[in-house]
Amino acid sequence: MSQKIRVSVVGATGYTGVELLRLLANHPQVEVVNVTSRQEQGRLVSEIFPSLRSFYNLKFTNPHDDELSQSDVVFFATPHTVAMKQVAKLLQKGTKVIDLSADFRLKNIPIWEQWYKVKHEATEYVKQAVYGLVELNREKIKKAQLVAAPGCYVTCVTLGLLPVLAQDLLDKDTNIIADCKSGVSGAGKSAKIPNLFCEASDSMKAYALQGHRHFPEIQQNIALFDQDIAKKLVFLPHLIPMIRGMQATIYIRLKDDSIDLQKVFEDYYRNEKFVDVLPQGAVPETKNVRGSNICQLAVHKMYESDCYVILSTIDNLMKGASGQAVQNMNVMFGLAESLGLDLVPLVP
Amino acid sequence: MSQKIRVSVVGATGYTGVELLRLLANHPQVEVVNVTSRQEQGRLVSEIFPSLRSFYNLKFTNPHDDELSQSDVVFFATPHTVAMKQVAKLLQKGTKVIDLSADFRLKNIPIWEQWYKVKHEATEYVKQAVYGLVELNREKIKKAQLVAAPGCYVTCVTLGLLPVLAQDLLDKDTNIIADCKSGVSGAGKSAKIPNLFCEASDSMKAYALQGHRHFPEIQQNIALFDQDIAKKLVFLPHLIPMIRGMQATIYIRLKDDSIDLQKVFEDYYRNEKFVDVLPQGAVPETKNVRGSNICQLAVHKMYESDCYVILSTIDNLMKGASGQAVQNMNVMFGLAESLGLDLVPLVP
Amino acid sequence: MSQKIRVSVVGATGYTGVELLRLLANHPQVEVVNVTSRQEQGRLVSEIFPSLRSFYNLKFTNPHDDELSQSDVVFFATPHTVAMKQVAKLLQKGTKVIDLSADFRLKNIPIWEQWYKVKHEATEYVKQAVYGLVELNREKIKKAQLVAAPGCYVTCVTLGLLPVLAQDLLDKDTNIIADCKSGVSGAGKSAKIPNLFCEASDSMKAYALQGHRHFPEIQQNIALFDQDIAKKLVFLPHLIPMIRGMQATIYIRLKDDSIDLQKVFEDYYRNEKFVDVLPQGAVPETKNVRGSNICQLAVHKMYESDCYVILSTIDNLMKGASGQAVQNMNVMFGLAESLGLDLVPLVP
Amino acid sequence: MSQKIRVSVVGATGYTGVELLRLLANHPQVEVVNVTSRQEQGRLVSEIFPSLRSFYNLKFTNPHDDELSQSDVVFFATPHTVAMKQVAKLLQKGTKVIDLSADFRLKNIPIWEQWYKVKHEATEYVKQAVYGLVELNREKIKKAQLVAAPGCYVTCVTLGLLPVLAQDLLDKDTNIIADCKSGVSGAGKSAKIPNLFCEASDSMKAYALQGHRHFPEIQQNIALFDQDIAKKLVFLPHLIPMIRGMQATIYIRLKDDSIDLQKVFEDYYRNEKFVDVLPQGAVPETKNVRGSNICQLAVHKMYESDCYVILSTIDNLMKGASGQAVQNMNVMFGLAESLGLDLVPLVP
Repeated sequence: MSQKIRVSVVGATGYTGVELLRLLANHPQVEVVNVTSRQEQGRLVSEIFPSLRSFYNLKFTNPHDDELSQSDVVFFATPHTVAMKQVAKLLQKGTKVIDLSADFRLKNIPIWEQWYKVKHEATEYVKQAVYGLVELNREKIKKAQLVAAPGCYVTCVTLGLLPVLAQDLLDKDTNIIADCKSGVSGAGKSAKIPNLFCEASDSMKAYALQGHRHFPEIQQNIALFDQDIAKKLVFLPHLIPMIRGMQATIYIRLKDDSIDLQKVFEDYYRNEKFVDVLPQGAVPETKNVRGSNICQLAVHKMYESDCYVILSTIDNLMKGASGQAVQNMNVMFGLAESLGLDLVPLVP
Repeated sequence: MSQKIRVSVVGATGYTGVELLRLLANHPQVEVVNVTSRQEQGRLVSEIFPSLRSFYNLKFTNPHDDELSQSDVVFFATPHTVAMKQVAKLLQKGTKVIDLSADFRLKNIPIWEQWYKVKHEATEYVKQAVYGLVELNREKIKKAQLVAAPGCYVTCVTLGLLPVLAQDLLDKDTNIIADCKSGVSGAGKSAKIPNLFCEASDSMKAYALQGHRHFPEIQQNIALFDQDIAKKLVFLPHLIPMIRGMQATIYIRLKDDSIDLQKVFEDYYRNEKFVDVLPQGAVPETKNVRGSNICQLAVHKMYESDCYVILSTIDNLMKGASGQAVQNMNVMFGLAESLGLDLVPLVP
Repeated sequence: MSQKIRVSVVGATGYTGVELLRLLANHPQVEVVNVTSRQEQGRLVSEIFPSLRSFYNLKFTNPHDDELSQSDVVFFATPHTVAMKQVAKLLQKGTKVIDLSADFRLKNIPIWEQWYKVKHEATEYVKQAVYGLVELNREKIKKAQLVAAPGCYVTCVTLGLLPVLAQDLLDKDTNIIADCKSGVSGAGKSAKIPNLFCEASDSMKAYALQGHRHFPEIQQNIALFDQDIAKKLVFLPHLIPMIRGMQATIYIRLKDDSIDLQKVFEDYYRNEKFVDVLPQGAVPETKNVRGSNICQLAVHKMYESDCYVILSTIDNLMKGASGQAVQNMNVMFGLAESLGLDLVPLVP
Repeated sequence: MSQKIRVSVVGATGYTGVELLRLLANHPQVEVVNVTSRQEQGRLVSEIFPSLRSFYNLKFTNPHDDELSQSDVVFFATPHTVAMKQVAKLLQKGTKVIDLSADFRLKNIPIWEQWYKVKHEATEYVKQAVYGLVELNREKIKKAQLVAAPGCYVTCVTLGLLPVLAQDLLDKDTNIIADCKSGVSGAGKSAKIPNLFCEASDSMKAYALQGHRHFPEIQQNIALFDQDIAKKLVFLPHLIPMIRGMQATIYIRLKDDSIDLQKVFEDYYRNEKFVDVLPQGAVPETKNVRGSNICQLAVHKMYESDCYVILSTIDNLMKGASGQAVQNMNVMFGLAESLGLDLVPLVP
């Protein structure tokens, strides 16, 4: 067996961070060498995350880029703007980077700056970065040194649309309505009133009515296939009282109703390990992918209507973040794509 | 003070039943004289519902229609097909009936029979029944002897659409997409696996993809204004891990984008006690109407789109069921419409 | 009908604050004239609490004591140390004060200062303050100008123990073990990581193992009856994933096993409106008092043991805080004790 | 690598069944050959459990004992009385049996019959059965052909008491009070009203006040060390609104307060893979063992008291059921004890 991949995780105190550590702990080809947090520097990882007590003996560090660059790959599980300040040195030394934040997701820099309200400081790497939706960019990811892991909503919606986009099946005059529902972990481990148990439980709401940062990212993915259809996107996220789990309920109309959409989906994803098209008539539930990297999809024609609905379901912390990041790592290092990711969903 | 209204509740062991009893216990003009349940006959109401210990001394009975007809009004909080077998005798003796079930909601009997898969046994009363959406039918309800209280999804969606229907603002070529989310109490107090805590919590799903019984009822309401638009309805319910609460996220397109939709809604509902149009930019949350009869509405134009979204939020057991039933009773008996219903939402 | 009581609420942005506002909105003898918050000054109450939109038109103010003293009664729903700085002026002007915080609960000032780690600034009012457990101090409360409303755990445990303390039934050599469980709203509306939805839901834990501030307060109540028994108190709180609700599971041994403990409890609380002793064999659930001021109690002999268990159940925001505060107000102003408090628990 | 163990699971449609299937799917030395369910016979396992879609192609069968006996080991994830009717044939053919039900847990048959209210039909195997608490019986389990996996509460309480029992540290005149809290999955996947989402969420209760079947089983374990102390057991379970997770809060008094209880626990469990004694002062939370086979323990002296508390925390479906069953299998077959069980807890 070959030598293990030396991995660093930057910003490992949030939910995508601890999820990465969970996955990397059991990954047979990984050795985690650095776990960084400015705030928790010097404390044991297992003190912040008692769930990791039997699995990590590391302390949080605040390493120089030099130390990070001794890793084979660095994951950034940080808020946006952190990765863009650190990637240059790492990439120059040959270290690979997988950024779970938004810094390198959008190719159009003015649009990025409009949505993230800050100047981009590593524009020269935006073009180089490969967008890390493996089902879309597998070949490019194999050769990538810098991968931008997609946003959770973006992953969920894009996987739901890829088959109809690839075959150009959508009616171009109809809006694509992506009514999305997310568990609260999507909001991260930040101490804000709306994320409190007493605020978020036994209730639900729509949010980001003025526009959500994942909107231009979904548009960018659609535009790879059709620029006009990208403009028909309507995206509205909702906060749902569950820890993990995300569903996109996507309403579309087809050019041609004689198409067998079930077959289109089954054919398109036949060889994908992590996309599971449910049998005709079945309905996904978020719990059925809890803790796993799987996306469960279903397509239905709506009752007495020309409207179709695509139900796309993921664990937002897995296929929507850390699981997908590890999937990218596997591809980048030539490992089996599901290595360390063949986790069975936790039910109940 | 006038004499109290003598009230019976048939089938009071479910969630709409106990909610009715909660409301009636504090209603200043009501005396509950009969609470029926075949299954729990002879047991104290407070034994089945310990929350009512300080409020009711009654036992569940299994009365003859003769006894029920001595009430001024009988609520049916029963599964469908119960009310249709009992209303004739009650109405003939002059007792008023408020049916929370579906027996008298649909005017088109073949459609009712298609959806409920049973022969209707009181077709002669279907025409007489007044559809109990007070905001739509207030004048008719004042004179009604038999009221069919609307379904929860139907109430939620219809209140969201009334202002645009009444003013004929909708684009006729675009689907009306009602993506609805409901708490688990909407499924009733029945011991079924999918409603178990371990199945329904920390998860979500769409359901009734083959068509939901509230679909023809919403269509019937829209068709009062425009038969063609009724055919554009797309309705998909989702189960959300909360006890109470319902939201309809309704996507529409307008004929004319110059309309001030916020003003249309504010004007339309200006005098309605139980419909609260939120200020421009605000977003409703289901917890803010928990335990109250209020519907909170908001309208938004979607980001970079010609699509509008209407957010309609109710407590499914209140404005969606028992609260609305009591509102109907108040109107039928000439009482102040909000008598006994001015309950402040329970937050947190 | 007599003139309404003019009420101010200081610090109304937390959970006990909004709960007070909920109760006062429907109280027939109350007019809320001032709602204060330094932080939210100038904003509509209904903007912070959309659940109150139909009930309050007030804005948050930051009034001088002079303005507050024009109220008949001022509620402090503040963190500790706020009330102790403001009561002198109010009391001197004849305004009554009900303090929901801990400032006047403990008679022993050094012990207060030890637990709250700050110097007490109104020691001269500590003696004058009446401890607002109505079931213990009703006669004193009638004449009180300053009432210290008890802590939530303290209310729950003390109501469970009063009957056996009053009759001196406890074995003096056995620890009184109060294993307590609380919903998350007990931690208040403060943006702290452990209170986040993703931290607190689907999990539970004991806390305050080094001692909880309600410990000396429970001891003080027990010591009114027996100083030695007060020293036998063992109190351990647990955080449970529910919004509201609190249960004390109290394990005791009796001097004499021939006592009919069920009868002792029923007799002791026979005339109490808000304490409900369940029938022999019944078990309380927190949901059965949700949103109400009721304490449900049950007593059981443990299987094959000389140990008895007392189960005491309240809504921590109601009988454990704001409901009890309004109950005190009713007593202080000579109103019916349950005025505005005859709310039916919200089930489900 | 040696040949895989051929495994059958009888009664795999409940929560311990699906949890077993989750664990066995990733176990490197296991091949699942038979999954039985009388009710679901002929249906795909993945149809009943869509979470297993990518992991099992099997259908539920209703095999004869002959077929079952071709397995190397049969797990019974059935209600009690099923295993006792089937073990004889299996054991006679040399198949090993791990019974997750209660049939072989109690050595005293009259006591078993008293608690389970049915005649025991395999009394000759009760003596032969090894009680499957690996931390207590490892050596016996290595040679066992029939293992009775302990109850969830029993595991949780016994692991909390083993160190003080083994060293005879308990004061013999004081009750051992085990106040236990369990998630709802402990009640199984049965469609009963009290387990509904709307009944069990946002609420809590004690239950089984008349005695719980795990009581005699805990007593049996204590009595292995001291028959008198076994009689001091007080055990009260509570239902908590979480899916998985169990905590025993155990109140004890020691003979001698000079003992360093922290050290006693650390020494006792130093070599146990699945028992994790937290550092002095730390407090376990159930989420930190979610989905894992780990028991987290902490010991504390209570504030100003001679009482100690032991906090014992497990995932009731893992160390409390299926995880422990697989741990037993590993021991019985001479595998590494943690093979297939080194799962990182799912946080958040």
